[in-house]
Amino acid sequence: MSETEPAITTETPSSEAGASDSLPRSSHPLDPIFHPRGVAVVGVSSRADPEGRMGGIFLNALVMQGYPKEYLYPVNPKMEEVLGIKCYPSVLECPDPVDHVISQIPAAGLAELVDQCIEKGVRSIHSFTAGLAETGEPELIEAEREIIEKVKAAGVRFIGPNCMGLYVPGVGLSFMPMLPEDPGNVFMLSQSGANANTILRSLGERGLRFSKGVSFGNGADVRAHELLDYALADPQSEYVVGYMEGVQDARRFFERLKQVAVAKPTIILKGGITSDGARAAHSHTGSLAGSIEIFDAMCRQAGAWRAESMDELLDLATMVTTSVRDVKGPNVALIGAGGGFAVLSSDQLALVGLTLPPLPEEVQAELREFVPVAGTSVRNPVDVTFGRDHPLDFVSEPDLTRRLFEVIANSHSTDVILTTVGGPWRPGSDTSRDEEDRHFRAAIEEFSRIQERTGVPIVMVQDERRVRRVTQFAHQKRIAIVPTVTRAGKGIADLLAWRKEREGLPSIL
Amino acid sequence: MSETEPAITTETPSSEAGASDSLPRSSHPLDPIFHPRGVAVVGVSSRADPEGRMGGIFLNALVMQGYPKEYLYPVNPKMEEVLGIKCYPSVLECPDPVDHVISQIPAAGLAELVDQCIEKGVRSIHSFTAGLAETGEPELIEAEREIIEKVKAAGVRFIGPNCMGLYVPGVGLSFMPMLPEDPGNVFMLSQSGANANTILRSLGERGLRFSKGVSFGNGADVRAHELLDYALADPQSEYVVGYMEGVQDARRFFERLKQVAVAKPTIILKGGITSDGARAAHSHTGSLAGSIEIFDAMCRQAGAWRAESMDELLDLATMVTTSVRDVKGPNVALIGAGGGFAVLSSDQLALVGLTLPPLPEEVQAELREFVPVAGTSVRNPVDVTFGRDHPLDFVSEPDLTRRLFEVIANSHSTDVILTTVGGPWRPGSDTSRDEEDRHFRAAIEEFSRIQERTGVPIVMVQDERRVRRVTQFAHQKRIAIVPTVTRAGKGIADLLAWRKEREGLPSIL
Repeated sequence: MSETEPAITTETPSSEAGASDSLPRSSHPLDPIFHPRGVAVVGVSSRADPEGRMGGIFLNALVMQGYPKEYLYPVNPKMEEVLGIKCYPSVLECPDPVDHVISQIPAAGLAELVDQCIEKGVRSIHSFTAGLAETGEPELIEAEREIIEKVKAAGVRFIGPNCMGLYVPGVGLSFMPMLPEDPGNVFMLSQSGANANTILRSLGERGLRFSKGVSFGNGADVRAHELLDYALADPQSEYVVGYMEGVQDARRFFERLKQVAVAKPTIILKGGITSDGARAAHSHTGSLAGSIEIFDAMCRQAGAWRAESMDELLDLATMVTTSVRDVKGPNVALIGAGGGFAVLSSDQLALVGLTLPPLPEEVQAELREFVPVAGTSVRNPVDVTFGRDHPLDFVSEPDLTRRLFEVIANSHSTDVILTTVGGPWRPGSDTSRDEEDRHFRAAIEEFSRIQERTGVPIVMVQDERRVRRVTQFAHQKRIAIVPTVTRAGKGIADLLAWRKEREGLPSIL
Repeated sequence: MSETEPAITTETPSSEAGASDSLPRSSHPLDPIFHPRGVAVVGVSSRADPEGRMGGIFLNALVMQGYPKEYLYPVNPKMEEVLGIKCYPSVLECPDPVDHVISQIPAAGLAELVDQCIEKGVRSIHSFTAGLAETGEPELIEAEREIIEKVKAAGVRFIGPNCMGLYVPGVGLSFMPMLPEDPGNVFMLSQSGANANTILRSLGERGLRFSKGVSFGNGADVRAHELLDYALADPQSEYVVGYMEGVQDARRFFERLKQVAVAKPTIILKGGITSDGARAAHSHTGSLAGSIEIFDAMCRQAGAWRAESMDELLDLATMVTTSVRDVKGPNVALIGAGGGFAVLSSDQLALVGLTLPPLPEEVQAELREFVPVAGTSVRNPVDVTFGRDHPLDFVSEPDLTRRLFEVIANSHSTDVILTTVGGPWRPGSDTSRDEEDRHFRAAIEEFSRIQERTGVPIVMVQDERRVRRVTQFAHQKRIAIVPTVTRAGKGIADLLAWRKEREGLPSIL
C-alpha cells in the first residue's frame, strides 16, 4: 500500500476518500457499495468516442460528474495514461483501497477479472460487460452462475451483468455525464440502463434530485428486493421509483416492496406487460416477465403504484414530490389563454376522470370586476387575455394576475389549479433567456405563496424546452411543471387513484 | 383611385397585386378571399407589445410573413405611420382596391366598420373582434345577426367574429409570425385560433406545408361546410385537417364532408366531446357541441377520421402525408439502442394493436453475420449497439448500418420500420448543429432509398428539438419524424384503422 493512500476508517465513513458527502448514511449492509474509497475502471477504451474523447463512457462520466481523479484508477495494459489519469495494467496493481470495480471488458475475460478483484479485496464489482445469461446460451448462463458463486463465497457484491451500475451524486459516482450533480431524496432502481438514464435525466430536468440510482441488469447478485430494503433503511431516500422487467425472487420482492411502499411513496414501471414486450424483456435481461395481473395485485396490496408507461412514471413522480401530493380532490380550475385550447384541455381532463366545475356565480362576479368581457371567459376554464393579444404574466401585470389566481384559489370549487400562465408572450419572439427566466421565477414565487396560503396546489403547464433553467427552483418551491395539460391531468388523476388504493394504509399521500 | 394602383383583373388572378403566387387556382366562389389585392388592418395598435413592437399581431404577422407592404393599409386615426407603413384614418380613405379588411377594434364599433367596408366595396371582412354571439348576451347575439344580414345583402364575406382569420402562405397572408412561409398541399380549417396556430406550427415543424388555413371562430357567415367545399375544389389542397367545436348546418356539413373526404384524406379534431369540454366550447365560440356519437358516425360514413386529441391529429397527419400512407400491415420492426427502451416500446406498440413479430430465423442468421452477440439483439426489437457504447449511424458506419436496414426491410415479416437511428451519439455532447444535421440528412437519404426500393416505410423517432432543421427535408423524402415510439405506433395504428373504416370507398389510403 502506498504512503499517500487514505486511511480505511469504515467507522467514520464521511471521512473516507472518494466519499465526499457528509450526508446521513445508513448501517445497511449495501451502504458501503455506494461509498467506494477508490474506483477502478477496467477495460477503459483506447479508441476515441464519436466526440474524440478517450477512455469510454464510464471513466468520462466519473470525471465529469466529479468523482475525485486521485481515487480513480483506469485499467488497460496497453495505455500509460488517459484523461490525464495514470493507467494501470491490472486491478492488482492499482493503489489500495479499490472498493469498486467497473468492468468494460468482453465477457470472455470476466471470470479472470473477478478472481483478481477477489484477490484485491474489493467490495463490489459492476459488470457493464454483457453477453452472459441474457443471451440464453447454456454455456454463458453457466459462466454467469460460476462467477456469482465465486463472488458470493468471497463476500464481494456483484452488480449486473449487463447494466450501467451506480449513480450516487453525493459522492460523484455516475454512469452518464450530464446527470444532476447534487444529491436529493429519490431512490431509483432499474433493470435497464437506458431506462435508468431516461428516468434520471427526465426527472432531473424537472428539478427532482436523487439519493442513489442503480441500474442492475440481469440482477445475478444484487437484486430488486435488496435495493428496496436499502431504500427503506436509507435516511436520504424519501421516494422510490423503479423499472423492472422480471421479479427474480417474488416472495422477498413482495415483502420488501410492502415495507418500503408503506413508508415511502413507491412507483414501479413494469416492462414486458404484453407478450411482445415480455419477449423483448427476455432477450434483454433474461427476465421472465411473469403475469402482469399478479404483479399488479402485489403492487396494489403493497400500496405501491404500478406505472403503465414511462410518461406515467415521470408525471406521477413529479406530482408526488410537489404540492400536488396534498391535492384534496378532482376539481380543477384551468387558467390559460386560448378558447380552443381550453376546450380540448377540458375534454382531456374529463377523459382522465377530473372535473372542471364552473366557478360559483359569486366568484365569477368577483372576477368580472376586473376581467373584461370580450374574448375572455371566467366560468372555468378561465381564458384571460384581458382584451390583449398576449396572455397574462406576473412581470407586466403582477397585481391583476395575482388577484386572478387568488380569487380562483380561494373558491371552494377549486382543488387544484392548472395554468399556462408564467412565461413571457412569444410566438417566435427573441425574448432573451434572462427575460424568460425572470418571468418564470416571478410566477413560481407567486404561485408558491398562493399555494401555501390557500392549500391549493398550482401546476404549471410549460414546454420543457423553455423552463429547463427554472425547474429546480420550481421543485424546491413544490411547484410541479409538466409539458401538457393532458399529462398534468393524468398525473393528478393517478395520484388521487393511488391515494384511494392505499385506503387502510398509513396516509402518506 | 390612385394612379399607382394595380389593375383589377379578376380574369387573370395571378397578376393581381398582393397575390404573389403563380400557383393553380380554383374558380370556387370563396377563392377570391384568399387572394386579396389589398389588405386593411383596422384598429392597429399604438401600444407596444411586450417586445416593443407597435401595430399589433396582425400587421406584424403580415409584414413578417411577406405580404407586400405597398398593399397593406393600417387604419388608426391617431397614427401617421406604423412599422414604416403609412396609416389611414379609416377604411374609406385607404387606396383602392381594399379586398380584405381585418378588424381589431372593440365590438361596439364593428357595425360602423362593416358599413364602411360595404361602401368601400371590399370582398371580405375578418373579425378578430370578439364579444358578440359567443358571450350568450341577447343584445350581442342580435348585434352579430344584424351585421351578418348586412354583409350578406352586400355580397361581402365575413370570417368570424372571434377568430384569427386567414393564413395563405402563397400570398403572404398570415395571422401569426413564424409560420411556414412556403405553400404546400394541406388545407386547414379551425374554429379556434389557438388550435389553428398549434396545428400550423406543429405540423410545420414536422415539414408539412399548407395551401390555406382558416380560423373562423363563431362561423357567423363563412362556415365549415363551405370551407370543405372549397378544399375539394382547390387544386393546391390534397389533404384536409380541421378543428371543429360545433356543426352549424349539419346536413350541408355532412354532404360536403362526404365529398371532400372521399377524394382527399380528411382528419377532423372535434372539441367538446365531454360535458366539461362542451361547456367550454359553448363559452368559446357559442357552439352547441352536439352528440359526439352522431359526429363520429358522420365521419365514419364519410371516410373522414375523427381525431380524439390534438396529438392524434398531428401524428396521423404526419403519417398520411408520408410513406406510411402505403404501409401494408401492422408488423413493425423496431431498430434502436437500449434493451429497456426496446421492452417498453414493444409494450406500447402492442397496446395500440401493432405487432413485433420475431424476425425469421434466416434473417436473424443473416444479421448475426455482422452483428456481435454481446449487448445486442437481432430478434426484433433489434438492439444494435454493436458492442460499442453508442448507437449506429450512417456517418460513422454507413455500410454496416445500411446493410442492417436493408436486411430487415427485405424480411417478409416487416411492414414498417421504426427507428431511433439517425443522429450522432450525444448524451450531453457538444456536437455542432452542422454535425447533427449531416448525420440526420445522411440517414434520411438512406432511409428514403431503402423505402423506395423495398416499399417498407421507415419512421424516424427523434426528439423534435434536435431535428427541426431537417424535418422539411425528411417530409420531402416522405419520411415521417415523430417524437416517441408510442406516438409513432398510435399514428400507424390509426392509419390502418382508418383504411379499414374506408372499406367500400375509393382506396386513397
